Amino acid sequence: MIKVGVAGYGTIGQRLADGVAKQKDMELVGVADLAPTLAIRALKEKGMPYDLYLVDGADQSKFDELGIPTAGSFEDLCGKVDIMLDSSPGGIGAKNKEIYQRLGVKAIFQGGEKNSVADVFFHGYANYEKGLDQSYLKLTSCNTTGLIRTVDCLDRKYGIERVAITIVRRVADPGDYHRGLTNALQLEQAPTHQAVDLMTIMPHVDATGILVHTPVTHGHFITVLATGKQKITKEMALEAFRAHDRIRVVRLEDGFLGNASFFKYGRDLGHERGDLYEVGLWENSIVESGNDIMYGIHIPQESVTIPESIDAIRAACHMQETREAGTAETNKYLGLGLWKK
Amino acid sequence: MIKVGVAGYGTIGQRLADGVAKQKDMELVGVADLAPTLAIRALKEKGMPYDLYLVDGADQSKFDELGIPTAGSFEDLCGKVDIMLDSSPGGIGAKNKEIYQRLGVKAIFQGGEKNSVADVFFHGYANYEKGLDQSYLKLTSCNTTGLIRTVDCLDRKYGIERVAITIVRRVADPGDYHRGLTNALQLEQAPTHQAVDLMTIMPHVDATGILVHTPVTHGHFITVLATGKQKITKEMALEAFRAHDRIRVVRLEDGFLGNASFFKYGRDLGHERGDLYEVGLWENSIVESGNDIMYGIHIPQESVTIPESIDAIRAACHMQETREAGTAETNKYLGLGLWKK
Amino acid sequence: MIKVGVAGYGTIGQRLADGVAKQKDMELVGVADLAPTLAIRALKEKGMPYDLYLVDGADQSKFDELGIPTAGSFEDLCGKVDIMLDSSPGGIGAKNKEIYQRLGVKAIFQGGEKNSVADVFFHGYANYEKGLDQSYLKLTSCNTTGLIRTVDCLDRKYGIERVAITIVRRVADPGDYHRGLTNALQLEQAPTHQAVDLMTIMPHVDATGILVHTPVTHGHFITVLATGKQKITKEMALEAFRAHDRIRVVRLEDGFLGNASFFKYGRDLGHERGDLYEVGLWENSIVESGNDIMYGIHIPQESVTIPESIDAIRAACHMQETREAGTAETNKYLGLGLWKK
Amino acid sequence: MIKVGVAGYGTIGQRLADGVAKQKDMELVGVADLAPTLAIRALKEKGMPYDLYLVDGADQSKFDELGIPTAGSFEDLCGKVDIMLDSSPGGIGAKNKEIYQRLGVKAIFQGGEKNSVADVFFHGYANYEKGLDQSYLKLTSCNTTGLIRTVDCLDRKYGIERVAITIVRRVADPGDYHRGLTNALQLEQAPTHQAVDLMTIMPHVDATGILVHTPVTHGHFITVLATGKQKITKEMALEAFRAHDRIRVVRLEDGFLGNASFFKYGRDLGHERGDLYEVGLWENSIVESGNDIMYGIHIPQESVTIPESIDAIRAACHMQETREAGTAETNKYLGLGLWKK
Repeated sequence: MIKVGVAGYGTIGQRLADGVAKQKDMELVGVADLAPTLAIRALKEKGMPYDLYLVDGADQSKFDELGIPTAGSFEDLCGKVDIMLDSSPGGIGAKNKEIYQRLGVKAIFQGGEKNSVADVFFHGYANYEKGLDQSYLKLTSCNTTGLIRTVDCLDRKYGIERVAITIVRRVADPGDYHRGLTNALQLEQAPTHQAVDLMTIMPHVDATGILVHTPVTHGHFITVLATGKQKITKEMALEAFRAHDRIRVVRLEDGFLGNASFFKYGRDLGHERGDLYEVGLWENSIVESGNDIMYGIHIPQESVTIPESIDAIRAACHMQETREAGTAETNKYLGLGLWKK
Repeated sequence: MIKVGVAGYGTIGQRLADGVAKQKDMELVGVADLAPTLAIRALKEKGMPYDLYLVDGADQSKFDELGIPTAGSFEDLCGKVDIMLDSSPGGIGAKNKEIYQRLGVKAIFQGGEKNSVADVFFHGYANYEKGLDQSYLKLTSCNTTGLIRTVDCLDRKYGIERVAITIVRRVADPGDYHRGLTNALQLEQAPTHQAVDLMTIMPHVDATGILVHTPVTHGHFITVLATGKQKITKEMALEAFRAHDRIRVVRLEDGFLGNASFFKYGRDLGHERGDLYEVGLWENSIVESGNDIMYGIHIPQESVTIPESIDAIRAACHMQETREAGTAETNKYLGLGLWKK
Repeated sequence: MIKVGVAGYGTIGQRLADGVAKQKDMELVGVADLAPTLAIRALKEKGMPYDLYLVDGADQSKFDELGIPTAGSFEDLCGKVDIMLDSSPGGIGAKNKEIYQRLGVKAIFQGGEKNSVADVFFHGYANYEKGLDQSYLKLTSCNTTGLIRTVDCLDRKYGIERVAITIVRRVADPGDYHRGLTNALQLEQAPTHQAVDLMTIMPHVDATGILVHTPVTHGHFITVLATGKQKITKEMALEAFRAHDRIRVVRLEDGFLGNASFFKYGRDLGHERGDLYEVGLWENSIVESGNDIMYGIHIPQESVTIPESIDAIRAACHMQETREAGTAETNKYLGLGLWKK
Repeated sequence: MIKVGVAGYGTIGQRLADGVAKQKDMELVGVADLAPTLAIRALKEKGMPYDLYLVDGADQSKFDELGIPTAGSFEDLCGKVDIMLDSSPGGIGAKNKEIYQRLGVKAIFQGGEKNSVADVFFHGYANYEKGLDQSYLKLTSCNTTGLIRTVDCLDRKYGIERVAITIVRRVADPGDYHRGLTNALQLEQAPTHQAVDLMTIMPHVDATGILVHTPVTHGHFITVLATGKQKITKEMALEAFRAHDRIRVVRLEDGFLGNASFFKYGRDLGHERGDLYEVGLWENSIVESGNDIMYGIHIPQESVTIPESIDAIRAACHMQETREAGTAETNKYLGLGLWKK
């Protein structure tokens, strides 16, 4: 039983903990954080399903006042686990790495850290084998994770040479007040980093793209124009997408009108926090452009990286030898792909 | 065991069904709807925890194609229950009432229907006893339900003579595309109907107010200026509010920065759909103005009416004799008030 | 002096009237509308710079009560002009055409009408000569008008074979309450009509694309991937765009951070209504993708079609023989291109 | 002829300059700023209607590169004027004051500075006479300025003892990207500073209130509950409001549906930047609550303080002796009140 800890109990950290807790071949030892945030208060109100450890700089007395039990220090947690999922705020992960190295514990970093923090820039479907037995892996960010799922899906079946993307980025998560945008679309310098990151993971693909921020919270939207080694028709693309356990092909006529429909659907499904792990892919968006194929995807930014993060544990700890076996095990425990059956 | 059916499986209907299912002294017989909406598709993907009945005009073949099992007609459902919770689209409830009358089944209507559809305009805390043994009750709407909780709370303890409210109304629910507002605050004719409705339920209180629509989805915000029979201090108000099982007193410094914090907190708690049943009340908002007291509340529009709707079943079916007993039983099964202990 | 009337004094009609009034070789005879809207009330408060005519169904007494002078009926207006700019609500233009035909007056319809209403689907830069001496022209819609400016610009210089677009559509205009979207991105069936329309105007180009609605009011954003007959570099594209009088090339580092910056800039320039006629094109957005070129443009939906509508008058009335001469005359009176000098 | 300079050519500074330029008894000598912002670039594109001076720290070469002519340093400007309107970023005004004192120039500070920067906290209608001959005045902020207009209006006619307000605050200006809020209402600690500020200006009134931020850009909305020395009826309130030259009484049925309608109307009027100086007051919002009167107002945050800032020049420079004379002169040149005639 692989023992796992989570550093940082924020938007991603909470979901990493929830996701690991569902893996029957892993044990979630605990989570670590700094302050009694709403997420920690909720953890207490739920009866502390996970143990809480305090990172350096935390004020124990604030937790005591609130009656929130704590289980020890961040180093205590690190000492009990085989691997840490590090979803600390950007930059902190690099500092934590010193502790991980000293204590000989492996770690998976999230997209906010620099690539240099890790030995491998990882994606469960695209380069699982590169992560085997490695000590420090860094996950792709939310947009890149979802994007690569779909590009890798086409690439393995038909071969992909080039992608050009447009990212319509949600600017904040539900409940964020520290960042926001009001009645504006904000542009960033092109090419967008997600295209650059895709090329790091899939070096045989030429990628570029443009990103624009938009004032919504329920998921990014990406259009992808992809050039295959052969002509990929709409039917061929659909066949590949439908067979993928982390892609949910949907239709406008069924009620999936936009990004908020996925959010609603996740809630209606009774999923914890209303989350979906799949990217959404609209059948209605797929069009052929000359020899290229174009399609639009929905990226649930809060939860999309969770499956690939768990894949990373499987690779780093050599729990499964191949991407097929590793991702299948993650999918089984997260219930991915079940809805097609 | 009181048998309950739900007509209309939309935003409110789903939550009524979920809420009734948690009552150990009630049995949810099934829900009825017209078309395979996202909510119905999610019900199927969840494995049909409730039976589904089809209302008049539904196309059975559409459900068959999707493999969604159905249990009969709307009248079949009505024939099996003691009471219907009617959350059909506005106006349909009045038509359904003919069926209820013919079949001798009681019904609770939601705020979208005209008052004349019911014998009593009902609020679990404010006039429970008026609902005892009645056949047709109509619930107050979401804003009015939450507002009355707080006004009734002060009124029972200190006496309230007058309220003047400002409603900052969320314009759509998460996942709505058919209504919306973009970069605008929209005014309505004053006095707002919620003030008028409050006077119907609490005729000894003089109420008026102004409503403005605002482009957000996560909860209404109401400021209330209340005149007591005696001077009500901030401390007195806080004491009353804190003792109420359907009011959650919160603070900015704890992370409850606005309406979206409640939404986030409900998700973090692991609540189904991320819902909270309580109205939020900010300690930081309470100020004294001369002899009046002023405060600000958060209304979770999707879920706030569920407890009072269940109270209505208890009153109509004479399950409990008094408001104290009726609301306490609802609260027990919904877990309300537990978080204070 | 060509005499011009405007039917429909809404968002587009007001701007058509303003634009025609600036043409020294045209006379704006008047505008026609149905009701004393805010736009008409403002016209009165400004001292009636244009005469107002009433369309069929208008209630003269309402205008009299408000002291708004009127100059006659819609047919009276039609009888005094050479050409009508018809910006009536969608569908009304087709009815008005019967009057235009009876009275022998030419007309330019806006994008909301069906193509069949007109002899030519028109764009000032792309097919000016097709409009020469025609009686009924229909303008491309706002997105298509701006998009074609940039594609035609590259096409005339380097040759364009294919475009694939992503439209991030603003969902409402400032001051709209009847349509809106709140915290959602809404998808439409692909291919989007703007791509199809582009192919009607530029039949030698293969076009397709995806459109997503976004909750903002200050301008659409389009990314364009274009395939040239030859490789088009970033420098080549910039050179062409910079030479175009209806394209404004801007940079993030100068303060043009997004669509709202154009709106602010138009206001700071002291332009009437804060309007800009140019499409914005971000230098920072231009990237090469293999042999293709990709760029992002801003479409000021309220005002972008005005110059091409005036071009249409010039073509229909044969005021200038060529696109170069026609568009140059429009640009001169609208002050387009001056800012580069 | 009073000579005026403007420090800081941002949202407020631009409008102060525009407003002063309209006063026939004042001369706008120039404006001062730090960097070639969009506003400065627009000034250049307009042909430099005002001279531009550079504040300490500005990089002259950046202006030279862009061909933007400059007229000297900030101290040069101060040396040429009788009075400075200081709309520098918060805190800078206090530093500038040292220069003003050294050079013996008067100054009017905007709401972002601390009260201690000035001798008088000023409002043109409420305490004009207190500003007579003073050297340093500070204007009330946008919400407070508009609020006081209406409270002072009722107070002078009927006597006001108490107000309780709810402010629905727009969170950003059009074109802002550095601050924003997305799908959230954010609360602040009560009582809101605008109520406190009102009591500083009108010490005989008891004021308190609650403020909530909302994700829109086109104007704040305030509801005011006011207690008169006598009962104030809706008709009495309307009569007073209608007689005020800086209050525009509007109706929903005329098309003023919300804050964005004022913005649209200002644009339709052809006003520079689409600005209105008046607060809007909805007839439809006025309701009586016991002996109190309640109403809702629209605050155009970008432009509302301009008239009172110009009043401040009149008071500080003793251009007119009384509030009636001072405000009337400002109104005449700004065209305020004309629309009623």
